[in-house]
Amino acid sequence: MAKKAKLLEDLFYDTLKDIYFAEKKISKTLPKMAKAAQSPDLKAAFEKHLDETMVQIERLEEVFEIIGKPARAKTCEAINGITDEGAEIMEEFKDMPALDAGLVAAAQAVEHYEIARYGTIRTWASELGFDKAVKLLDQTLEEEKATDKALSKLAISAINLDAEKELA
Amino acid sequence: MAKKAKLLEDLFYDTLKDIYFAEKKISKTLPKMAKAAQSPDLKAAFEKHLDETMVQIERLEEVFEIIGKPARAKTCEAINGITDEGAEIMEEFKDMPALDAGLVAAAQAVEHYEIARYGTIRTWASELGFDKAVKLLDQTLEEEKATDKALSKLAISAINLDAEKELA
Repeated sequence: MAKKAKLLEDLFYDTLKDIYFAEKKISKTLPKMAKAAQSPDLKAAFEKHLDETMVQIERLEEVFEIIGKPARAKTCEAINGITDEGAEIMEEFKDMPALDAGLVAAAQAVEHYEIARYGTIRTWASELGFDKAVKLLDQTLEEEKATDKALSKLAISAINLDAEKELA
Repeated sequence: MAKKAKLLEDLFYDTLKDIYFAEKKISKTLPKMAKAAQSPDLKAAFEKHLDETMVQIERLEEVFEIIGKPARAKTCEAINGITDEGAEIMEEFKDMPALDAGLVAAAQAVEHYEIARYGTIRTWASELGFDKAVKLLDQTLEEEKATDKALSKLAISAINLDAEKELA
């Protein structure tokens, strides 16, 4: 009996489920990061990106509809690893002068994972002829890139070099 | 007794150990990806990046020397998660038309993790006044960006849309 070949459309659906899981995980992680952030600017950046993330989740649901498949999340070990590292920093650097710098670093690792994934599935959607999906994925990709740029700017102001070396 | 504050230099050293672990893991993963790749161009791209990775590991060892700390690797859950996903694709899409597209996607997730991390530690090295380290980290950052761009080009040629839907 012939075995069904796994084609680009299968890989596309698989990866869509992966990033759907990742976005949902990020939506649960961002409020913790906003709460932990010491600088009001960084807190605001995380809150803004949480709002964007909720819209990005809806866009993914639209893409599932476009390809006629159910919106399902598939455990994404990559985002779990990236957010675990962020949680570790929040724990280890709690109340420490370097906390915000660590939070920015963790958030940029998340953004770059998303930039990689959206870049990939955008290319595949285009090759597969899902033009409406390309538009939606492009919007999200641009938002992720803008968030990464905003974080790069905050990366310098988040650094607290003048902090006391000894804490009470 | 006063508790020692965790400062940017601690975070820098921690993150250096994280990316050192990541590069070593990548150096073990790339040969498997090169072996799995169907297209000769993609195989060559992975082999080229393996050579670069070996030099990048040496550069990190130089950075450890510059800051006067021992070169140690610290388990990086993020890269473990990212490479686990790549391994899953190699397994699930073995001998399938979409394999190369999946390999490119996995490699771009790795590249973006590195771009995020090197961007971060480059900024911190600069703030901490480790100018020689900044130069070394910049070299690596530019290589990672160039690799990501090369993979984006291969992402389209790696797609095998004309493949038969049924395999023998």
